[in-house]
Parts: sequence; structure tokens; C-alpha cells
Amino acid sequence: MEQRISLITLGVTDVARAKAFYEHLGWRGQEVEETVFLQAGGLALVLWGRDKLADDAGIDDRGTDGFGGVTLAQNVRSRAEVDEVIAVAVAAGAEMTRPARETFYGGYAGYFTDPDGHVWEIAWNPAFPLAEDGTITVPDFGAIG
Amino acid sequence: MEQRISLITLGVTDVARAKAFYEHLGWRGQEVEETVFLQAGGLALVLWGRDKLADDAGIDDRGTDGFGGVTLAQNVRSRAEVDEVIAVAVAAGAEMTRPARETFYGGYAGYFTDPDGHVWEIAWNPAFPLAEDGTITVPDFGAIG
Repeated sequence: MEQRISLITLGVTDVARAKAFYEHLGWRGQEVEETVFLQAGGLALVLWGRDKLADDAGIDDRGTDGFGGVTLAQNVRSRAEVDEVIAVAVAAGAEMTRPARETFYGGYAGYFTDPDGHVWEIAWNPAFPLAEDGTITVPDFGAIG
Repeated sequence: MEQRISLITLGVTDVARAKAFYEHLGWRGQEVEETVFLQAGGLALVLWGRDKLADDAGIDDRGTDGFGGVTLAQNVRSRAEVDEVIAVAVAAGAEMTRPARETFYGGYAGYFTDPDGHVWEIAWNPAFPLAEDGTITVPDFGAIG
């Protein structure tokens, strides 16, 4: 198996609501057959009906809308950008579950949930190189330890 | 907000078990402070204790280990590779929740769950250009419709 991810699909209860939320955050994509595809670097973030996603995956969805054990993170370029992105998300209807704060690794980060409870962290992490094109590189921890 | 994702963190109950599973699949990463970072193209897949992740995010984890409403997908280069990757995953302990089958969009795909119930789809999708470096591009659906 190659070491890469092509799509992240978020199951949602209302595709139009989810699409509007991400558009408020500045994301743009295409909707086709009640599925929204948002290019994100070399992969795509997909918004699709949670019931359809569970059925497609052959999964018994117990219907929780709480924490699913997965978080998405965006590393940004400054402390100020952490605050800015979280403020935009809250204005778009996100719930801020963890106000931005200093982190144990010397960064600054906070969390919010989207209208379906999917969890986003917005982080400034000086230890993780962030390229101009938005890609990140896991540092050599042996070298920086 | 820029339109990109830096990290995908999977909350796990046993970091060593999760790390061993992904290593069986051929993934390699670094473990630091009971957290595993696996570079995946321009982002990182992270394995971290689910309790720590929920606490960090300020989320009340109701403790389900079922479907969390999120799936990860890897698009591969052939139908045969779909079968191969799923077979490797099952040999590593994955549960195949949806055997590979023809899809409505003219592709071929199946699903499995990792030891913590996180859902992976392995798909061959001729409509989504897959570059040599593993990045995908969302096609212009207006153009191919």
C-alpha cells in the first residue's frame, strides 16, 4: 500500500448546509449528485450524506453525531492566523470546543466543530515546516529532540 | 482560511497496535511521545490516544468505537491493486466491511476498518486523475458530464 491519502469524506446530514459552511470559510468546490468535492492540495475533501456513506462502506451507523475519533488539522503561518480562522469559523456557525491556547510543543492551537460535529484543529506549529504551497513535512524528531 | 489539510489524526485505544497495523500495510513513520506521525504526501496521518485527542479538542467522547462519520480513501492505479491492498489489510487484521465491487461511477472499490474502527476505502476511479506522485485532481464535472 502506498503511503498516501486521496480523499477524506465527511458524512453530513444536510449537504447544502455543510457546503454553505465550508463556503463561508472560503472553500470552493463542485457539487455533483449531492456530493461536494473540494480540492485540498493533492487530495480532496468530500461532503456526502452520512447515511449514504455508511451504506456504501457497509457500516452499521449507530447514529451518534458526537466525536468520531478523527480530527482534521490545518497548520497556519502565525498565531494571529489561528485566531482569525477560528473567528471566521465561529461566525459561519462552528462551535469552538477549545479556544486557542499555547500548546505543550511550543505552538498555539484551538479547535472547532463543523455543523455535523466534525472536528478541526487550527494550529501554528513552528516545529512542522509549512511550505509556500501549504504542504507540511513531518520533522525528523531524532534531529530536533 | 486556506483550502488545505495538514494533519488527519486518528484516535486509537492502543498506539502500539495501531502503529503495527499501519506498518503491516507498509507505512513508515516516527513515534514521539506516544504519537505516531506518518508522512502522506503533503500532509501527515497521526495516530494518537483517543482519550488524549478528545481531551485536547475539548470534546466529550461518548466512547463509541463505531462509525464516526468520516472515511479515508486511497485511489489506486488498477482494479487489481484494490484487491491487493484490501487483502494485505485483512491479513494485517482489518475487517473488510465492503468487498470490492463495481461502483456506480464506473470504478471498482471496497472498504475495510482498521483496529480502531476507522474506515478506509480503496478505490480505482478512472475519472479522477492520479499523478505519478500519488496526488489526485478533482475533475471538472461540467466538462465530463
